[in-house]
Amino acid sequence: MAEIGNGGVCFPKGFSASGIKAGIKASGNLDLALLYSKEGAKCFATFTKNQVQAAPVLYDKKVLSGKNIIHAVFINSGNANACTGNQGYADATSMAELVEKELNLAKFSVLVGSTGVIGHKLPMDKISAAVPELVKNLSTENSELFAKAICTTDTILKTGSVSVQTAKGEVRFGGSCKGSGMIHPNMATMLAYITTDLQLPEDFSAEFRELVNESFNAITVDGDMSTNDTCILLASGQSGISLNDLSATEQTDVRNALFGLMKCLALQIVKDGEGATKKIEIEVCGACSKTEAMQIAKSIATSNLVKCAFFGADPNWGRIVSSAGASGVAFDADKLSLYFEDAQVVKNGMPTDISVNVLREIVKREEYKISLNLHLGEFKASVFTCDLSYDYVKINAEYTT
Amino acid sequence: MAEIGNGGVCFPKGFSASGIKAGIKASGNLDLALLYSKEGAKCFATFTKNQVQAAPVLYDKKVLSGKNIIHAVFINSGNANACTGNQGYADATSMAELVEKELNLAKFSVLVGSTGVIGHKLPMDKISAAVPELVKNLSTENSELFAKAICTTDTILKTGSVSVQTAKGEVRFGGSCKGSGMIHPNMATMLAYITTDLQLPEDFSAEFRELVNESFNAITVDGDMSTNDTCILLASGQSGISLNDLSATEQTDVRNALFGLMKCLALQIVKDGEGATKKIEIEVCGACSKTEAMQIAKSIATSNLVKCAFFGADPNWGRIVSSAGASGVAFDADKLSLYFEDAQVVKNGMPTDISVNVLREIVKREEYKISLNLHLGEFKASVFTCDLSYDYVKINAEYTT
Repeated sequence: MAEIGNGGVCFPKGFSASGIKAGIKASGNLDLALLYSKEGAKCFATFTKNQVQAAPVLYDKKVLSGKNIIHAVFINSGNANACTGNQGYADATSMAELVEKELNLAKFSVLVGSTGVIGHKLPMDKISAAVPELVKNLSTENSELFAKAICTTDTILKTGSVSVQTAKGEVRFGGSCKGSGMIHPNMATMLAYITTDLQLPEDFSAEFRELVNESFNAITVDGDMSTNDTCILLASGQSGISLNDLSATEQTDVRNALFGLMKCLALQIVKDGEGATKKIEIEVCGACSKTEAMQIAKSIATSNLVKCAFFGADPNWGRIVSSAGASGVAFDADKLSLYFEDAQVVKNGMPTDISVNVLREIVKREEYKISLNLHLGEFKASVFTCDLSYDYVKINAEYTT
Repeated sequence: MAEIGNGGVCFPKGFSASGIKAGIKASGNLDLALLYSKEGAKCFATFTKNQVQAAPVLYDKKVLSGKNIIHAVFINSGNANACTGNQGYADATSMAELVEKELNLAKFSVLVGSTGVIGHKLPMDKISAAVPELVKNLSTENSELFAKAICTTDTILKTGSVSVQTAKGEVRFGGSCKGSGMIHPNMATMLAYITTDLQLPEDFSAEFRELVNESFNAITVDGDMSTNDTCILLASGQSGISLNDLSATEQTDVRNALFGLMKCLALQIVKDGEGATKKIEIEVCGACSKTEAMQIAKSIATSNLVKCAFFGADPNWGRIVSSAGASGVAFDADKLSLYFEDAQVVKNGMPTDISVNVLREIVKREEYKISLNLHLGEFKASVFTCDLSYDYVKINAEYTT
């Protein structure tokens, strides 16, 4: 598997970016981000399945229903532009139009994104005043400023890049995402932007959705699905290389590289989960279907009791078995096996005589894997979660006050 | 509505109880409880829908598949007898047989219950040694000892009683329950025992399930459904009064009294939720069906972000709207109304201009109601929840270590 670097959204050919302060955030941190593809890029996108969808999500879906070549994505942080009604939709439209005007682009060339607090109108005067500077600062060196400007409660920048050498030349992928709370994506996480200079076929949409399911949709911080979840892949094609022209082996390499990047970005969100001190993989195998394996893994990964035990480094496996049982998936409790890393703690539904000290050493680690085998079928799925700590409560008890 | 007293399980005619220390709990608190009906009582019961069911749940279901007249319920706390395999089932059977022998009862006259930590074998020697004293201490004065002996992390005793005066005489109901964590019942909560001296018809089962759905199944502490959830109603009939012989008005009075008692017991569990500092009613109305109203209410009531905001007395209504949208139920976001008590904070999906100070005064209270109206139909449902506090994390990070 190709190694993931930290090149960000400008790593592939054909992309420049920018990030500045417009005064939307009270903290004075960067709050406007722009990603630009001068020649245009083919766009693949997934959005939240929340019934309450933010204005930028509604606007982007409208744009993408008519076309799939996009020239820019304009994002603000500090305000989600959600539950803002017609005014919010008009503001999302204005955001796109401001950038279209400044860059001399045709209508519907720009997507928008917003993240932050729900239910407040965007300060359009501040945004409007900042757009000229934002555009002026566009540069292929600004991956990091872009990554910074889309953050809210994030404590680490989330970027990644990967390249694959093919017989026809090099293909590059870059990406950046943000997210720390309200993370239980059902379509894509808060905001994630992936770029590539590979030429991708129209029918790559289905594969992109599958990759999102296995990466951003396989993580959870607090079980709360956001109103703004968005994952966008922009393909500039400027490597001059088309996916369909590659050999089968190269296609596999490229797909694995893209998936590796997306998973790397998703895991950065878990690691930076609000208050999180640990990152745990929950693998469910031996299931009758992938859907059922995922359903059980998510039930375990979102259990507050399980997550508190992770925080306390308490190898309380009974809670894991109980939350599997509460998932709604039928299985035979007497067949269950459960492992903490390689240490088997449950066999045929009953505790083994493994020493609790062995388990305690494992759950003290910052990262470890828990594996539940149903012994019913051949399917498996993994979900990545974090622990539930005092700091999660602190951060979220005091967010708007 | 008849007033709820604190009489407990021995309040109706025909029941005695007992509670002693057998040394199962390291704390040395009461850990064995017995409820006895000398003449036998008709039994209605609901159990957890968790796929992993504790041995006492499996045993009780077996007993009740063959008969519905029960003479005693024998409960231990401090050990859930779950994930204990064949040995656990044999131990549950032994518990019943020990009491049957001591009270000269026929086989399958006694139900059992267990609550506590998962995955440990019961100390049958201690239990066996304590049964003679437990039986010797049976008395109609021991409702409180019974209530104490079924507790684990509970900080308050949960008892209640109610009586209804009919033309034929007085009918009484009493009850006791326990539960503080792993509370998100799908059938009934951890352990709840209701008694009555009313004669109930066989077909009362369906109505009992309905009452459980509206009381114990309408509460949540942490979204974790337990392996041991059990709710049992024992009807001694010793008032000499049969439900079917009462007038329509009296039948309604009796049903309301029973429901009032069950709801009162369920709310005591929410109030004593692990780490809880507040009790909040989430009402969803204007839904297309009761099921959908309940699904949205549960989605809000189990959201960690919402519950942290409750703890921080932060009127962060955006999280409530977002978690409603994540429930999986379809609705029109532009039609939503949201109230904190009588204060309308959202109208047509957008914030009203209500002062945040008005909202802050409401969410500072220990108990309040939040009401979401979908404006789609005529159905509604309520779920009772508590906040997510530092102490919840503390209690559950340190449970077995």
